[in-house]
Amino acid sequence: MALIVQKYGGSSVADAEKIKNVARRVAESATAHQLVVVVSAMGKTTDGLVGLASRITPTPEPREMDMLLATGEQVTIALLAMALHTLGLKARSLTGPQVGLRTDRAHTKARITRITPERARAALEAGEIVIVAGFQGLSDADELTTLGRGGSDLTAVALAAALKADVCEIYTDVDGVYTADPNIVPDARKLPRVAYDEMLEMASLGAKVLQARSVEFAKKYGVAVHVRSTFKRDPGTLVTREESGMEEVVVTGITHDRSQAKISLLRVPDRPGIAAQVFGAVATKNVVVDMIVQNISRDGFTDISFTVPRGDHVRAQTALEEIGRTVGAEKVVHDERVAKVSIVGVGMRSHSGVAARMFAALSKEGINIQMISTSEIAVSCVIEDKYAELAVRSLHDTFELGREP
Amino acid sequence: MALIVQKYGGSSVADAEKIKNVARRVAESATAHQLVVVVSAMGKTTDGLVGLASRITPTPEPREMDMLLATGEQVTIALLAMALHTLGLKARSLTGPQVGLRTDRAHTKARITRITPERARAALEAGEIVIVAGFQGLSDADELTTLGRGGSDLTAVALAAALKADVCEIYTDVDGVYTADPNIVPDARKLPRVAYDEMLEMASLGAKVLQARSVEFAKKYGVAVHVRSTFKRDPGTLVTREESGMEEVVVTGITHDRSQAKISLLRVPDRPGIAAQVFGAVATKNVVVDMIVQNISRDGFTDISFTVPRGDHVRAQTALEEIGRTVGAEKVVHDERVAKVSIVGVGMRSHSGVAARMFAALSKEGINIQMISTSEIAVSCVIEDKYAELAVRSLHDTFELGREP
Repeated sequence: MALIVQKYGGSSVADAEKIKNVARRVAESATAHQLVVVVSAMGKTTDGLVGLASRITPTPEPREMDMLLATGEQVTIALLAMALHTLGLKARSLTGPQVGLRTDRAHTKARITRITPERARAALEAGEIVIVAGFQGLSDADELTTLGRGGSDLTAVALAAALKADVCEIYTDVDGVYTADPNIVPDARKLPRVAYDEMLEMASLGAKVLQARSVEFAKKYGVAVHVRSTFKRDPGTLVTREESGMEEVVVTGITHDRSQAKISLLRVPDRPGIAAQVFGAVATKNVVVDMIVQNISRDGFTDISFTVPRGDHVRAQTALEEIGRTVGAEKVVHDERVAKVSIVGVGMRSHSGVAARMFAALSKEGINIQMISTSEIAVSCVIEDKYAELAVRSLHDTFELGREP
Repeated sequence: MALIVQKYGGSSVADAEKIKNVARRVAESATAHQLVVVVSAMGKTTDGLVGLASRITPTPEPREMDMLLATGEQVTIALLAMALHTLGLKARSLTGPQVGLRTDRAHTKARITRITPERARAALEAGEIVIVAGFQGLSDADELTTLGRGGSDLTAVALAAALKADVCEIYTDVDGVYTADPNIVPDARKLPRVAYDEMLEMASLGAKVLQARSVEFAKKYGVAVHVRSTFKRDPGTLVTREESGMEEVVVTGITHDRSQAKISLLRVPDRPGIAAQVFGAVATKNVVVDMIVQNISRDGFTDISFTVPRGDHVRAQTALEEIGRTVGAEKVVHDERVAKVSIVGVGMRSHSGVAARMFAALSKEGINIQMISTSEIAVSCVIEDKYAELAVRSLHDTFELGREP
């Protein structure tokens, strides 16, 4: 009998009715499979708990924050187990600590160190459906920890790896991974499968289906991840190893990200150590830098541009103006009206001219490219924000993604 | 440095502001004492969780109910720890399992089997205030359990015993134990101290300050319990061992209980085994019987009366009508317009005529006594409900409880 790990997010378990609905869905799978079901906190529960803490203090201690937040998922597992019992099924809820998910001591953003799922195995062998609280674990100091953003997905993938499950099904409110955002591109197509690396690029490039962290984990341990809809029955997208057939398609999908801002240091003296000083200053402000572009120097000066999450750019700018003076930059400018548009595909590895086709398509629409960065399987361009949708549609056409391959 | 265990109930921690208020109160004690603070779930949280479960199923499995309910106290301990941190104090929250409170496997009404509070001791030695989730523990099957009604008080008393604390302070919305309900008797007096046995009688007779279960535990392990107000500073009532001076007062307090109903089986054949059959039938309906009165028989027949919680009496009546036919009773009648009024005092042990004075006082007011039952240190009468307040006032006067002894 196959073993499946399923994960249902907060919007799928937002109230008692939705939990009963998930229970029915679980019950269908339970007839033919052993099941481990990972759930998030109900709806906006986590936000509510964070709000409660903020009424006590603006700077809660991370250990106590974890103690607080871990209650959210614990409520859901109990209710889902009850709902399964009413359907006549044997089910048992387990918290993160009970399922043996151990982490380091980095409260509120702990990393999984090992999983010893003896209790889950025993329950499965006893014919029970195992309901697991996502997002939480136990540190090596025996303290409750939480895994940070995307933590419940990560719990599901990690449990699938530890239990050698046949597949890890991630149920969400989208029904899979598309060639582009269907809200922007009417003929966007649901991809039956994508490679881990493609999904990783898509995740980090702004497609919100699955966090990069979970995909990395799935890739490392070879866990097949099936992204599908809580509300529809048809199959979603399988995130899996590259297969030979995959390379025939050069570009798999178009992603875009409108959540960033661009910062540029203009006419920076081009000497060793400058970049280290600049990004050191940004790092001290806890701002995460995404794309970085530095061009060759002219007359001993160069420009450095990079993108950061919108909202963080003011904080970054403050730090940079100081460092800009120190290193002798002419000035620091920022622009939040930017979007990043990317093409992704493992097929790029063995095909040339892909980037050129992308640039030509954008040029044909009169879209100026402000920054370019490339990886082995993706090309990203920063453009003016107002052209984002036009760029995505144009690229989707150019690479003929609306057509079945 | 003295070690104090404090317990704050749900109404004392009902919202963020109240939690901050408790934190300030704790901070005052923390300057001169080592502190363990036990808290309940915030306000109506537990009711909310029960309601959530009831929208899933009318009959939740007790194990999952405990998984659900245990989250309530966990939220409070995290928030209180945060609130103490903002006051510059070192504090650490611990769940029931983390504080080493072990129980049997009777989910939703578990009994404490042992406490191994190593983590609490280590934290105290490190100069931390220890915040403990009341009401919860870990069974010998390593499952989360809850202790049932009054569970947080019990956690506090049990921890005080295990840690050999100097005193266990129970903070509530009343400021102590009174000679009678001050809402009924204007000159009711706060008792500076009561003996465990008196408190036990008062608890089981309807004074809602402290559950009998916690008092029994305190008595068994000799824990001094100080019942006091969350909102006022003055001392409350110390529940402690009997002292020699105590016996000079014959009656310590008057209690009343308007939450019961009376059931009578009339003209039951008086033969061995009848009572066992009758109360066996009541027990199968999970109805708890309080007072039982059976008078001597006349012509081979007797009447059996007893009281049960109001609301349960219909269920009990149904069971009894069947058994009444079997045993040949004439009929079964019930009355929910009854009240139980009691006088309590360890001094009764060595004084005679106390019951007679009680009956005379009631008679003088024209109050008919329907049932009488006595223990070593209490006399209780069931009377018509409408006379309850009159009876309490009259007895309070008769035994001169408004005067300082």
